[in-house]
Amino acid sequence: MRVLGCVVGVAALASSFALGWTLSGRAARGEGEPSPAVKGWTKGKGWGPWGKGDEVGALNAMTPETIRTALGMVRQGKVYDLGVPYDAESFRWPGHNAGAIMTFRGPEGVKRQGDFAPAADPKQNPAKLAWHSCALFISDNVGTQIDGLGHITAGADDHWYNGFKEANWGGNFGIRKCDATTIPPIVTRGVLLDVAAMRQVDVLPSHYRITVEDLKATAAKQKTTLRPGDTVLIRTGTLRYWGKNGSNHDKLRQHDSAGIDLAAAKWLVEQQGAILVGSDTSGLEWGPGPKEQATFIPVHRYLLIEQGVHIGEFHFLEELARERAYEFCYVCMTNKIRGTVAGFALRPIAIR
Amino acid sequence: MRVLGCVVGVAALASSFALGWTLSGRAARGEGEPSPAVKGWTKGKGWGPWGKGDEVGALNAMTPETIRTALGMVRQGKVYDLGVPYDAESFRWPGHNAGAIMTFRGPEGVKRQGDFAPAADPKQNPAKLAWHSCALFISDNVGTQIDGLGHITAGADDHWYNGFKEANWGGNFGIRKCDATTIPPIVTRGVLLDVAAMRQVDVLPSHYRITVEDLKATAAKQKTTLRPGDTVLIRTGTLRYWGKNGSNHDKLRQHDSAGIDLAAAKWLVEQQGAILVGSDTSGLEWGPGPKEQATFIPVHRYLLIEQGVHIGEFHFLEELARERAYEFCYVCMTNKIRGTVAGFALRPIAIR
Amino acid sequence: MRVLGCVVGVAALASSFALGWTLSGRAARGEGEPSPAVKGWTKGKGWGPWGKGDEVGALNAMTPETIRTALGMVRQGKVYDLGVPYDAESFRWPGHNAGAIMTFRGPEGVKRQGDFAPAADPKQNPAKLAWHSCALFISDNVGTQIDGLGHITAGADDHWYNGFKEANWGGNFGIRKCDATTIPPIVTRGVLLDVAAMRQVDVLPSHYRITVEDLKATAAKQKTTLRPGDTVLIRTGTLRYWGKNGSNHDKLRQHDSAGIDLAAAKWLVEQQGAILVGSDTSGLEWGPGPKEQATFIPVHRYLLIEQGVHIGEFHFLEELARERAYEFCYVCMTNKIRGTVAGFALRPIAIR
Amino acid sequence: MRVLGCVVGVAALASSFALGWTLSGRAARGEGEPSPAVKGWTKGKGWGPWGKGDEVGALNAMTPETIRTALGMVRQGKVYDLGVPYDAESFRWPGHNAGAIMTFRGPEGVKRQGDFAPAADPKQNPAKLAWHSCALFISDNVGTQIDGLGHITAGADDHWYNGFKEANWGGNFGIRKCDATTIPPIVTRGVLLDVAAMRQVDVLPSHYRITVEDLKATAAKQKTTLRPGDTVLIRTGTLRYWGKNGSNHDKLRQHDSAGIDLAAAKWLVEQQGAILVGSDTSGLEWGPGPKEQATFIPVHRYLLIEQGVHIGEFHFLEELARERAYEFCYVCMTNKIRGTVAGFALRPIAIR
Repeated sequence: MRVLGCVVGVAALASSFALGWTLSGRAARGEGEPSPAVKGWTKGKGWGPWGKGDEVGALNAMTPETIRTALGMVRQGKVYDLGVPYDAESFRWPGHNAGAIMTFRGPEGVKRQGDFAPAADPKQNPAKLAWHSCALFISDNVGTQIDGLGHITAGADDHWYNGFKEANWGGNFGIRKCDATTIPPIVTRGVLLDVAAMRQVDVLPSHYRITVEDLKATAAKQKTTLRPGDTVLIRTGTLRYWGKNGSNHDKLRQHDSAGIDLAAAKWLVEQQGAILVGSDTSGLEWGPGPKEQATFIPVHRYLLIEQGVHIGEFHFLEELARERAYEFCYVCMTNKIRGTVAGFALRPIAIR
Repeated sequence: MRVLGCVVGVAALASSFALGWTLSGRAARGEGEPSPAVKGWTKGKGWGPWGKGDEVGALNAMTPETIRTALGMVRQGKVYDLGVPYDAESFRWPGHNAGAIMTFRGPEGVKRQGDFAPAADPKQNPAKLAWHSCALFISDNVGTQIDGLGHITAGADDHWYNGFKEANWGGNFGIRKCDATTIPPIVTRGVLLDVAAMRQVDVLPSHYRITVEDLKATAAKQKTTLRPGDTVLIRTGTLRYWGKNGSNHDKLRQHDSAGIDLAAAKWLVEQQGAILVGSDTSGLEWGPGPKEQATFIPVHRYLLIEQGVHIGEFHFLEELARERAYEFCYVCMTNKIRGTVAGFALRPIAIR
Repeated sequence: MRVLGCVVGVAALASSFALGWTLSGRAARGEGEPSPAVKGWTKGKGWGPWGKGDEVGALNAMTPETIRTALGMVRQGKVYDLGVPYDAESFRWPGHNAGAIMTFRGPEGVKRQGDFAPAADPKQNPAKLAWHSCALFISDNVGTQIDGLGHITAGADDHWYNGFKEANWGGNFGIRKCDATTIPPIVTRGVLLDVAAMRQVDVLPSHYRITVEDLKATAAKQKTTLRPGDTVLIRTGTLRYWGKNGSNHDKLRQHDSAGIDLAAAKWLVEQQGAILVGSDTSGLEWGPGPKEQATFIPVHRYLLIEQGVHIGEFHFLEELARERAYEFCYVCMTNKIRGTVAGFALRPIAIR
Repeated sequence: MRVLGCVVGVAALASSFALGWTLSGRAARGEGEPSPAVKGWTKGKGWGPWGKGDEVGALNAMTPETIRTALGMVRQGKVYDLGVPYDAESFRWPGHNAGAIMTFRGPEGVKRQGDFAPAADPKQNPAKLAWHSCALFISDNVGTQIDGLGHITAGADDHWYNGFKEANWGGNFGIRKCDATTIPPIVTRGVLLDVAAMRQVDVLPSHYRITVEDLKATAAKQKTTLRPGDTVLIRTGTLRYWGKNGSNHDKLRQHDSAGIDLAAAKWLVEQQGAILVGSDTSGLEWGPGPKEQATFIPVHRYLLIEQGVHIGEFHFLEELARERAYEFCYVCMTNKIRGTVAGFALRPIAIR
């Protein structure tokens, strides 16, 4: 084994120069072998802690090596767009504000108003150029989202991840710790667990509770192995009703309540090491949950506050499901707006 | 070391088979040789046309192969965040609307209002969960941007890329052709041309005109070869004054007028095959241009309307420059909001 | 009669010195006598024209004398608030944008952010002062409204009152002729026509068509005489369902379709000289009208475009109806926001 | 003429019986005599208290009688519009949000979008009707304003008028006690104190401190007597620089700091019984005040929190001043929007 070790080591070194990642090393590990150590994760316990003042949570586990590994999964160069098109008519959770997308400036208006001299002056503008721009009134919790670690608070002191408290870090212009600017660009191995397919339905029924057993059965059926550091995306099928803009509120609302229960969330994080958990619904979790639970959204509390695991919402998984694309490189960058509690109207991608 | 070199060569060859892309082939091509054919590009002429009804423009040239090639440039797994943090105080071009980021719901307010029963009812919510969400009033032309192909219009008929006219495709809710939802996820080879460094300054002076000669001199100094299909990012140094939120309007405005002239834009597209041209200013182009030109923003007209080449703005290039990271994989996904004319408050990344 | 006439004349003169209006003179006119001449009104024809460039319409007929007369109707000093409280949940016509009222600054946020030095510095602010202010995203067509003369357009040239055309006077920031700043403060005699009471119902049924005969029967039952220059308010009873914020959309939508037909509008203006016509619904007019009509809102076209008569909407008439207060002084001042096409969230008053 | 005089006297007497107000009685009271009792006011102490739960403050003192008296001041029927036209470029206090007035729907857009069937269908709409409506993003503290009693808070408990505390009555959607819907329609005697004219300047200089002596000298020069229950409007001359939309920020900011000091506010309320105090600046009060004061806006604290006296801001007094119209009937109705802390973009009127 010493020789092999040496060769592997050399090859790894070599490819890190030549290609930048360790495909061969990873491929050599059998499915039954222990997962390689992942920064900050302890099996049975989950992620962190990452230190006083940390605003990043489980995504701290991304390293150049994990990023290279994730990118190394790409074989075909095929990109799947996981974002849904958002507009003012799109379904949203009712606790967020309505929106509008408005033509702020348009060429006719620019010319009529005549308020911008370089455009209004025929000598400066014989080509009659003008511009469009839009003004948006929008929530930071619409469309395809990544919930930031400050989205949910708990307790009489209204604290969020890592003990940040409203009295210290709240404000009029959004949150001042764990806002969306603190979410790093996300590049990870991604896995789709198509629970709807496992259940042999197009879409899970209303209020369907996705359990640990469902997830295990799905992974087994797909022959998919979860690895620590994965982004895990769970398909209910709800977004087959999104259409061009999510205006079929009735259909979406109906299925949007399917999701994982708390035990499933714990299994994903503590046993499998998920670094990001997402789905194709507005809230990932099963709702409404059992009466005895501590709150109306226990999965959010667990993932965001306790584990520092970001949540992906309204990820469009239909095309991945159709092509049985269960493993891929997941890439998502949230917008960079100070104070915002989530990335919104995003366009994450899966690359194979 | 010879052995190591040999092993490296073999590993690279192996991975070119295993992974399906042509690193070695590309590396073998000498600088003097003709560029490989790139879909839709003709040297001396530029991009397209892509057909009646096309809304994508030059980005149509991205293929699984180009994407694999771009991802294959990654060696270290190091990610550079090219987005600037935006807030209501950030510098913007005055033709766009002012903005606000507002705490829409916060835990204290949620509890005081008591309007959401599952949170207000102590029996359902003993954990006292609540949430933050923000409402945003924002322009689609702020922060780090990708201008869409409908941003700029020309002529008495106010047409944009591919002949789409305001009378047909304008509207109250933004544009109905070439909106931001039509911009595909962008994964290309990226190149930084650090003109400021070539000029041996921290930042180019106000109204500095970047010419073809400047770009050639920069590429030569950097030993950087442009290739058809590249995203080309041109550094003026302006964003060294962005700070945490771009609130130093005076400094930013001063340098923001440095940029490329029309001939430089043409050279980049027609001679070099740039698929996306960006910079670290709000408008990429030199301003105000010469009196004899056809309009106040000839580069926008040329790139967006005539060539179907998207424009990148306010890309943060300081870290790349500091590390002399001149070649990388560029990845950017715009938000997916119907009607919007640009991707805004983005977070493109460069990966090496 | 000659003596009486003389005395009336003297008394009128006298009271115009002493009190400023002509109560006795007006009271002496019998119901069968011709209406006194009203500036700009011709029986059988209606209002205007008021000249090229006029943006005011029928409200030009208000004069110091008519204002004194209207104020002179006050006997008790009792003020009726005709405005409905608006918030983000209020019913509105679906063609206008959703809204939000947001705490922009609040004392906790001001203190936490610490961004305003005079408040943040304990030396300057030992009293710990702070402030509330709200940001609103709102339509100019919500709550209690006065439609301006540019609200509705007609024809291929999209013209509004007095021939102002979109191509000349439209713009990105609202309209540039007949915006709400051109609506003068309104002080007129006001009359309530309680059609619901005449029909002996609490509220008119859905789609109820109020005809000329209904209006005549109502006036006769109430013993109310209309006079040229009157503001006429027509009660359907719809706003009995407004409650604290108009959130009962189903009930409001149901009755909101009751209203006057085109003939009734013409009778009010051409035969009776109404200077402003309003009701307790979102659109005043009966809807949907007969198939043979020229458009979906013929009353709006007639009143606003052809007659230059402003329209009052969502006027709360329940208290007036309860007290059978059929004649009063009507006072309404619209907000003064450039570009806006209507006064919104208003609080007109009736004074008796 | 003796007969005429007699008739005038009789008519006045008659109307005082008939209409119920006390013009003759009031006119007969000499300047040295005690003011008639005004509900809720104690000389030397000021207004209130009005009882636990009161949200109205000094405006409770308006009664049918005071309203009749105020309206009875009208002689000419001349209306002065005291509102300034507001738009997105208007000067505002920097602690409030920027704004935008946007064409939300316009006839071209309505037709192009084709999303509203009754307008889009030529059969239903041969007249080609369409509409304009605007969307506004706006602060409740812009343009001509009436500050509500919840605008300013004090103390560690962030309380406002009548002890309402943030912890109980704050919220995400504005304030829940003393919002603008609680401000009754205001109809009072109004008095202009033209301090600029007294000082023989067009406009008071920057930071001019208006003292009790200034107010006394102004009243004496004008021969104006203040009476309990008056709205007192104090002219600095600042709004002579407002122009069409208040875009001359430099000039406005310069003079906007002229205003009354705390002693002057106390004298107006405790000695003169002002029910509402306003001016032609954004904040009424002198700023910045002396270093030894308890806060940066002591007049706001005193009037709003301690006395329950609403504040009028940015009242346009130029025309009143030009005509030396020092006494009038003041009428103002704030918009009726739940949660808002002030009436904004108002159009109060003075009637003589």
